[in-house]
Amino acid sequence: MRVDGKQFRAISWHGGVDGHLQWIDQCQLPHRFVLRQCMDAEVVACAIETMEVRGAPAIGAMAAFGLAIAYVTDRNRFESHWLPRFRRTRPTAVNLFHACDAMQAAAVDASNQTMVDAACAYADAEVERCRKMGEHLAEVLAVGERRILTHCNAGWLATVDWGTALSGIYQLARAGESPSVLADETRPRLQGARLTAWELSHEGIPCRIQADSAAAWMMAQGEVDAIVVGADRIAANGDVANKVGTYMLSLAAREHGIPMYVAAPESTFDLHCPTGAGIPIENRSDDEVLYMQGVDHEDCERLIRIATAGVSANNPAFDVTPNHLITGIISEQGLWKH
Amino acid sequence: MRVDGKQFRAISWHGGVDGHLQWIDQCQLPHRFVLRQCMDAEVVACAIETMEVRGAPAIGAMAAFGLAIAYVTDRNRFESHWLPRFRRTRPTAVNLFHACDAMQAAAVDASNQTMVDAACAYADAEVERCRKMGEHLAEVLAVGERRILTHCNAGWLATVDWGTALSGIYQLARAGESPSVLADETRPRLQGARLTAWELSHEGIPCRIQADSAAAWMMAQGEVDAIVVGADRIAANGDVANKVGTYMLSLAAREHGIPMYVAAPESTFDLHCPTGAGIPIENRSDDEVLYMQGVDHEDCERLIRIATAGVSANNPAFDVTPNHLITGIISEQGLWKH
Repeated sequence: MRVDGKQFRAISWHGGVDGHLQWIDQCQLPHRFVLRQCMDAEVVACAIETMEVRGAPAIGAMAAFGLAIAYVTDRNRFESHWLPRFRRTRPTAVNLFHACDAMQAAAVDASNQTMVDAACAYADAEVERCRKMGEHLAEVLAVGERRILTHCNAGWLATVDWGTALSGIYQLARAGESPSVLADETRPRLQGARLTAWELSHEGIPCRIQADSAAAWMMAQGEVDAIVVGADRIAANGDVANKVGTYMLSLAAREHGIPMYVAAPESTFDLHCPTGAGIPIENRSDDEVLYMQGVDHEDCERLIRIATAGVSANNPAFDVTPNHLITGIISEQGLWKH
Repeated sequence: MRVDGKQFRAISWHGGVDGHLQWIDQCQLPHRFVLRQCMDAEVVACAIETMEVRGAPAIGAMAAFGLAIAYVTDRNRFESHWLPRFRRTRPTAVNLFHACDAMQAAAVDASNQTMVDAACAYADAEVERCRKMGEHLAEVLAVGERRILTHCNAGWLATVDWGTALSGIYQLARAGESPSVLADETRPRLQGARLTAWELSHEGIPCRIQADSAAAWMMAQGEVDAIVVGADRIAANGDVANKVGTYMLSLAAREHGIPMYVAAPESTFDLHCPTGAGIPIENRSDDEVLYMQGVDHEDCERLIRIATAGVSANNPAFDVTPNHLITGIISEQGLWKH
């Protein structure tokens, strides 16, 4: 999608087998647009852990590329070190494990070129899934639902291109409709205020940011036509793990009769997980709640403490929304209602 | 209550009729404990608007003192300028209007001394109401409910002393019980992370901060025994206006069968307002959502932009929770169930 009118992917491979991986450092957004390049598998793994690249489909693609690099640069330790290394980076998004499985399967008697091709094919397939999903979602949202509330970032930064929830909004806009977005800021890491708002502004789509806890009140005021979010893992029964706060939104959506859709490529489904109770929920550092990053009036990056010193925090990164609270799940195959 | 072991009130009068008003500047907390003193009514009005003093009962007391100062220093304009000036400072908390009415009534043929005494009596009565309310609340919470979730700051800073929701927790602790508090950080102004956590740590009560949108998930995990919040205005039918996010909490509380109490002195009741629909909801500046204040690693105060530049925000400061979602309202008179 577009950054200052120019096309980018969140993650991309440049050159052939001796080329390099490039990604947008999402920790620097929206204040700085920084592209990272490297051919070091450990740097790629760290970029997943520190959330330079985040979003379930993007994590999967990043791991696929990281494992291709590991194979090219350190083939002897591919199985013993690098596969477990990447599997440990984040626990909740199942796309990570699907990508690791795919690269492990590709590694049987593979050349360096085969592995790079496999990672590129994995990423391209994710882009195509997101594009198709967006078409299905745009059809659903076109029926009078134009003021869309979203949580976290389920846009092209979270995938490779197009996005999940935002893919439908981008396709609506390209079809000449006029969607507008209410973006939950999404504490603690503010993916809504930092990433969703940034994406939408570069695509020229109207967007307002709000505190997460204002969402139910905006619904009560009649300001929301539909809610669309992404997913980090979907259990076999349709329970959805997504950014913490999604569950709270689903309760308010039901109360106000507002449709709540989840958009996710099939790489997000985990059929080995019978219900949401089996999905591991990542707890991240207290500091994400207690400190905040941004730029001062001189555009200088600052990390500030915003909370009382010496007090600790809870920081579950995700929650699980039971399937009965979800109006429908949209994948590249179309709308799945239960 | 205690700050580093020493007793303070959020607002207090020092000396006689030629004394001065003192308040804790809550915008500086938790990083700096700053006491402001003055005898200038306009400064007092601005301190309400900028939220140096906030919380419905504290706003009422502050206005009472501000009007006493106006009477002493500028009696000719008391009715024509100062009463409307104070009534305009914040729209939602009804305590403000009750305090203005009380001081208007006191001003008939009053001396300067009478007016200062009336303001002190107003504040003292609020303290006594909060103390009594805390006793009633402690009785309610003593029945097995010890892990208490609260939103915003309903502590002694928000009143004059004791607090509303936190008054019950303080009295439980003084009675030898062991309450612990889960404090919603309360975006956008972070009264939970900045004020509630600060109050509780000075009273030695265990507290953890969490993102507001994690509240429903913590309830689903069985981590919450009861919810207690304050109120800014309670309509005649028991609908409650309180800090934005309260409504969302009430929906999650109902889903999980967790009791949800509102603690408020009777100065918070507005019997002229039949339902919550009649309560004016203050919309505050976008910048509260888009910027954040805190201290850097050198303890230097910084204001940083945390959101995408050029994007605007919704910032309703309050919401309305319908009475049917509230387990009970606790005032100085006891527990009111419908």
